[in-house]
Formats: sequence, C-alpha cells, structure tokens
Amino acid sequence: MAKEITSREEDYSQWYLDIVKKANLAQNSAVRGCMVIKPYGFSIWEKMQGQLDKMFKETGHQNAYFPIFIPKSFLSKEAQHVDGFAKECAVVTHHRLMNDPNGEGVVVDPSAKLEEELIVRPTSETIIWNTYRDWINSYRDLPILVNQWCNVVRWEMRTRLFLRTAEFLWQEGHTAHSTQEEAITETKLMQDVYARFAEEYMAVPVLRGFKSENERFAGAVDTFTIEALMQDGKALQAGTSHFLGQNFAKAFDVKFLNENQKEEYVWATSWGVSTRLMGALIMTHSDDEGLVVPPKLASTQVVIIPIPKPNDEINAAVEKIMTELKAKGITVKYDQDKKKRPGFKFAEYEMHGIPVRLGIGKRDLEKGVVEVARRDTKEKSSQPIEGIAGYVEQLLEDIQNNLFQRALDYRTEHSSNADTMEEFQEILENKGGFIYAHWDGTVETEKKIKELTKATIRCIPNDWKEEEGKCILTGKPSNRRVVFAKAY
Amino acid sequence: MAKEITSREEDYSQWYLDIVKKANLAQNSAVRGCMVIKPYGFSIWEKMQGQLDKMFKETGHQNAYFPIFIPKSFLSKEAQHVDGFAKECAVVTHHRLMNDPNGEGVVVDPSAKLEEELIVRPTSETIIWNTYRDWINSYRDLPILVNQWCNVVRWEMRTRLFLRTAEFLWQEGHTAHSTQEEAITETKLMQDVYARFAEEYMAVPVLRGFKSENERFAGAVDTFTIEALMQDGKALQAGTSHFLGQNFAKAFDVKFLNENQKEEYVWATSWGVSTRLMGALIMTHSDDEGLVVPPKLASTQVVIIPIPKPNDEINAAVEKIMTELKAKGITVKYDQDKKKRPGFKFAEYEMHGIPVRLGIGKRDLEKGVVEVARRDTKEKSSQPIEGIAGYVEQLLEDIQNNLFQRALDYRTEHSSNADTMEEFQEILENKGGFIYAHWDGTVETEKKIKELTKATIRCIPNDWKEEEGKCILTGKPSNRRVVFAKAY
Repeated sequence: MAKEITSREEDYSQWYLDIVKKANLAQNSAVRGCMVIKPYGFSIWEKMQGQLDKMFKETGHQNAYFPIFIPKSFLSKEAQHVDGFAKECAVVTHHRLMNDPNGEGVVVDPSAKLEEELIVRPTSETIIWNTYRDWINSYRDLPILVNQWCNVVRWEMRTRLFLRTAEFLWQEGHTAHSTQEEAITETKLMQDVYARFAEEYMAVPVLRGFKSENERFAGAVDTFTIEALMQDGKALQAGTSHFLGQNFAKAFDVKFLNENQKEEYVWATSWGVSTRLMGALIMTHSDDEGLVVPPKLASTQVVIIPIPKPNDEINAAVEKIMTELKAKGITVKYDQDKKKRPGFKFAEYEMHGIPVRLGIGKRDLEKGVVEVARRDTKEKSSQPIEGIAGYVEQLLEDIQNNLFQRALDYRTEHSSNADTMEEFQEILENKGGFIYAHWDGTVETEKKIKELTKATIRCIPNDWKEEEGKCILTGKPSNRRVVFAKAY
Repeated sequence: MAKEITSREEDYSQWYLDIVKKANLAQNSAVRGCMVIKPYGFSIWEKMQGQLDKMFKETGHQNAYFPIFIPKSFLSKEAQHVDGFAKECAVVTHHRLMNDPNGEGVVVDPSAKLEEELIVRPTSETIIWNTYRDWINSYRDLPILVNQWCNVVRWEMRTRLFLRTAEFLWQEGHTAHSTQEEAITETKLMQDVYARFAEEYMAVPVLRGFKSENERFAGAVDTFTIEALMQDGKALQAGTSHFLGQNFAKAFDVKFLNENQKEEYVWATSWGVSTRLMGALIMTHSDDEGLVVPPKLASTQVVIIPIPKPNDEINAAVEKIMTELKAKGITVKYDQDKKKRPGFKFAEYEMHGIPVRLGIGKRDLEKGVVEVARRDTKEKSSQPIEGIAGYVEQLLEDIQNNLFQRALDYRTEHSSNADTMEEFQEILENKGGFIYAHWDGTVETEKKIKELTKATIRCIPNDWKEEEGKCILTGKPSNRRVVFAKAY
C-alpha cells in the first residue's frame, strides 16, 4: 500500500491528498466542494469533538442549537459582516419541487418562491444575536456562554479536503457579557483553550497571537488566533476567537439594564474551530508511509497482529494482554483476519497511523515476549509480555510527547528573522516557515507584501516584545516584529 | 411560575407549548418553522444522543458524515422516494449575493445560478447510496454499518416545536448487506435498540410493530416502528427502521461480487430517530407543574437548596453530600443564589423537571436530616444525612421505574378492542388511545377509515396473533387485529 502514496518531497499537495484517500479519511462527493467524511476520518474528528466539548463545559459553556437558515436581510445588518459573508453562499429561493410538466424528473415549482431568500449559514452571529434579544433584559441574564456544533456552508471556488470545503463541520461559541473587560477575558480564555487543545491533544505547537486589521473576522474588533506550521513551511490558522465589541448588539438591538438600572448594549465574543483541524493534524505529523495520529486522538491506539495467523495459543495470550490494556483505558484492536498476511496488515495500520503495533508469534510466546513497533519513529523492540500494559501506556505517552517535540523542533528550525525584503523573500523561497519582521502597521503595506510574496501577517504574538526597527517594505519606523508566512 | 402554565385538562396543546417555553427547552426562530433549541433543552437531547450513540456503537455501527446538499436529479432516481421527499423542501438555486444595484442591502446575483439545483437533505438515502457505489466491490466490503448525526429540512406547513419542524436534528443509519436476511435482521435489531432506548432511558413504553403499505417510508419494502402513547390519547411514532430491499442499490447501481464471483445488488436498511423524541418525552411524563425528566436523561439529577439561604454550616454539610453523590456518578447542583427565595426556587426546579430536590436548613442540620422531594409524585420526606447518597441513588432508580410504570398503566387503560365502526368511533371520541381492530388489509379501507375518523393504522404488532374477525369498515374477513390511533 505505502508505495501508492506520493512522497512529500516529490509533491507535497499530492502526498496530502493521497493520505486523505488511502487512510480512508474523506473523499469528494457528487456535490461540488462538499466532502464525505468516512468512518475512520470521522472517528478521529469525534475524539477531537469529545475533548473540545469537555473543555468548553469545564469553562462554563453549554451547547444549544440555532437554525441553519439566515434571512437574507440579517446579513446586511452588520456593516462589515455583510462584506465578509454575503458573497459566496448557498441561497435558498424556493420551497417546493414538482413533477416536470414536460416529461421526466422534477423541477422547481415557480409558485413556491420564498418572499425573502434564506442563506445557508456561513456563520451564525446574526441569527444568534437576533435570538439573544429575547434572552437578555437585565445584567442578571448575563453572561450567556453558549456553543453549537453544526455544519456551515461557504461557497469556496477552490476546495481541498478538510482544509477548504464548501460545507464543513465546526463549533461556534457565541457569548454575551455585561462589560467589555469580561468579553475580552472570554476571548482570550477561548484562545487559550484552543491552544491547549492543539498542543496537548493534537501535539501541534501553535503561536498565540492576534490578527492585523486586514486579517480580522468581518465584524470583529479584535481576532485572536492560534497558528500552526505545516511540514512544507506553510502556516495554518487552526482556530480563532473574536472580540466583537458591541457591533452585533447594536445591529440587532440587544440591550440590558445594568446594576444601576441604566440601559447598555451587550458585549460579544465568538470563537470557532472546524474540521480544518483534521488537515492540520494530518499535515503536522504524517510521513511518506501514511497517516500518523497522536495517541490521545487515536480511535484505536494499539493493534495486535498474530504472526503469521491466529491460533488458540496466541489468542489466549492476546486476550490477556487486551484485558490489561483495556483496564488502563487503552483502546485496542486484535486483527484476526486470516486472509491477509502480516506484512499487508503492517502496511495497512501504518497507513492509518495507529500509534502502537504489537506482533505476536509462536517464538515470541516461547520467549514470553511481543514485538512492539511505534508508528512515529518506526522503531521496533522485543518486550516481555509480563508488564506489557504498563510499557505500552508509557510508550503512548512518549509518542504523544515525541510528536509534539518533533513538530516544535521543526517550527524552531523554521522560524527566522528578516530585516530586509531581500532576506524576507530569500527565506520564503528557500526555507519557508514563520518570518518575524518589522512592519509599519498599515493595511496598504500588508497588502503590498502579500502581492509581492503571497505571504500574509499570520499574527502579532500575544507576548510581542518592544523592539525598534524599520518596516521591511517601506522603511518606516516599527516597534515590534510581527509574524509573516505563506498560509493555507 | 407554575400558575403560568395552562392545565392539561383546559388545553392540552397549549399546556405542551407552555412547558416547552417555561422550562426553557426551545423557541420559534425568525425563520419560519425552524426552532432554536435552548441550552436546557439541548442538555437533555445531548443525554439522549450520548446513550443512543453508545448503543449504536455497541451494535457495531460507526459514524460518518455526508453532504447536506442533494443534487435535484438524485431524488428522481428511486421512483417511490421522489414522491415522498421531492415535494416540500428547501431548494438552493444560487451561490452568490451581491450589493443591490438599486440601493441598500444585498440581492441574489443572477449570474450565480447553479446548473443543477441542490436540495437541502430531507433524508440522505440518495447521496449515501451514490457514495456507497464507490465503497462496495466485493462481499468483503460488506456489511457497511454507518450512522450520521445531522440536521435535515422538510418544508412543513404546520409546525410545532420538537414534534414537527422544518429543520430538525436526527440520526440516520444507513447499512449495506450482502443478503436479504442479514438486512432484515439489521432492520429488526435497530427497532429493538430504539425500543430499549425508549423504555429503559426515556421511560416511555412503546409498541413494536410494522407499518401498513400506506404508512411505509417512501422507498422501503418494510417499515418497522415504535409507537408511544401520549397523555391525550394520541399516538406518537417515536422511531422507524426500514428494510429497503435492493431499491436504492438498483437506483444507484450498487453491486457486489458475491463469494461465487457473481454480481448482485446490495441490500439496504435505514433507520432514524429525531428531536421529535423530545416531544414524546415531554408529553409522556410532564404534569401541570411543568416538565418531568426521567433520571437517566436528566442533565441535573439532584438540586440542593439551602433554607432559607446559604451559610457556612449549611455549605459545609452540602459539600459533603455533593461529594458523596458525585462519587456515585449522580449529577448535582447546589443553588446558592441569595436573591431568590426557596419557594421560588422550588417552583423553578419543578418546572424544569429536576428528579430530586434536597432542602436543607438549620433545624434539619440539628436533627441530622434533609428534606427530600421527588418530582414524579411530589412526595416529600425527611431523611438522615448519614447515608443520603445511597438513599438518593435508590430513589432515582425508583423514579425511573415509576415513570415507566405510570406510562405503561396509562397505555394499558387506553388500549381497547373495537369490533364495529360504532365502537371504534365511540372509543376514539371518549377515550382515545390504541384501538385494536380488524381490517381487510387494503389501502382503500385504511384511507376511508382515516377520512371518517382521522385515525390511522399505527402498526401491526410484531407479535400479532392469529384471530378470525371482520373488517370494522367493510366486514370482509381478517385474520388479525391491527392498531389504530389518532397520531401526532
């Protein structure tokens, strides 16, 4: 199987698509730009969802559900939001089909035209803030800390499985607060939740920062982001958390009586991550043999393969090992398929990124050992069956840590300073990665640099440091470096 | 609060809507027919989802995700399916908005008309079977046991929160098999999973049966159903499981090579339950004081209220009780709000259906007791704090069982035989409930009875018994009774 995937060096884009296909993660559907997430791909997404949902609840959030449709007029209510989201979208204009009077099939019934068109949600600020007006009267009704897991649609012209699809799955948190300070604290809290999830569960190191004006969410006062670095030196925006100020409260007239009985507009945040994280996961850890899944997100953490085939003796030993592994909360699969040879199975589980493989044959049993192979480094060793569960438990932790460290080392190697446009372009072309450079702070300069190099400002780090310098493009004064990269 | 809800006797429909509103379960949205599921309502739906998902996985199913859009032409491919589902639906005709050239707001961009219209999925058999064609070559690829949790849209004219909405949340299982027998076994297995879920978790007794031709799913060979009885004597179809034969495999050309290397069409099932179950839950157990939630689905099982207000002594005692309850896996909330009086809180938690309430005051503490109130019977008693967690654990089980038994008793009292149309109509008008009657087996007779009485055949029980009789309408011979009722 492995030979069927293109190597990263040969063609990074094709390597990615090959893994998505060969590891049974997702495929294109009959509907342009919409993907099918296959069971194995979905099992990893479910692990992500489960952990994120837990972290949202631990920080006081509750789930709810809002309609998929947004009346067209709602999009126009927030001036910047409409420019960002009322462009490429799916528009529902009719509510009925009828038999084609001229023959076969069905056609749209012209008499069933909607009075107002409905947009399939590209994001839900508008419909949610229209609802919050009913929920909020007094400061006692605040804060509202709500999240929803759902599908959204943005009519992307150029799509790519997981990374950019017309329909995708995501969560969108929408919170309402009585003070600006509390809303900003919430925005930062959720950036931190996302960063912790990315680093501790996905084993993906991320930069925590905030966006320049040009890259901000349409309707936000401030957008906080976590930015990851892929193995081809391109950045991937992995999650964003927006401080929306009072923009949506004003657009949808959502006011509250404060403790002094004075009316004020409500303060808002929104924050989201999507199935795009699957793309980040794949591109951070995988190799030319296939997918690599960090143990904490693997739906199967350990696979056991009988060598060359199952028999009573091996089965008995495996059953004991499985019981011990399960007792430690480790998910394990025993592949008893007699039609496939061990070598075929090895390649298959490698392709699917199962973190640990145990091979067990007659000779191993005689010696009281199993062969342990770890997916991340492909190292193999012989380990005593006695105490194997403890060994595997530690190994899973080691793999998780190693994947993070490996990605962090890559990022360290691919983080550079550039002080001139020449340096900047040289690094972009030959090395890629994050480039820390001075910028004069204007939208024009950022756009110009993008035109010239395709690189954008990924973020201004949360912990930026005062440093005098000159903008690489205009030479104007700058007091900090910002982070540029080409991005997905 | 409680006085704000209409009594069941006065107006059953209004009582239902009052509970949905006052217990903060759901509300109508700005989009006709689409609901907002509020956080408390969603917390109960999440409990249902979690348990169902567990049961699906225990029976070997995996989750996946398929596109929300269905090309219009797909609906026409299965002859019966198109009649059932290509009527009232949301049709996407364009993929872009633009600024209104005549002034404010945005309008549909006429140049962005889709070549083929897309339908927002009313159910996903067509897009899924079009995908399964790629997944299935040989008997080795079968069975496919896949489920998806998603939203669907059916443009209902008369909507009612949870019971009938234009958009609703559901799960749809879609399985593919190499033999008819295996597919039928799967169909029945899932009916059984639904029935066990309804009875053991929702505490809702259900009839297990199959549908007459007239009530079958559009495209199914056989539809199995679970039917519940509401407190107003009307039936509610709570879940269906369809044996689809080879209808969709033929429509989408999905064949496999069997073990003898011969090509055959694949056998299919599909099965679903939806947020409609929330309606069934509410209407089965609730009373004139508000919602009643069975303990196994309550997001908060126990609430503790300090009388009249929290103080150090009470807080210390409560903390100990909470630790003990949590150790038993019981979810508990301590309401320390000082601004609300105990009586107000009592009414509030009654309205929300929290199964058990503990009240604890100074005098209670002196005696080493708490006041325990159960929501189902509204009985109160004083119980020693020593060992209270064990008492509450048993009480939650008793409440769960009592709710089921109460609903079962109601159903038993409201199940009748009718041997003539006069009897049939008399029972329908005065008593309601399930009516077991003879029927000549024809679609015409069923339709005529519906016209005359509004009652439909809910199901033919799985365990129907041979019994000679005459059709209540036509007098023609019949060998079994079928179950009629008015239905939601």
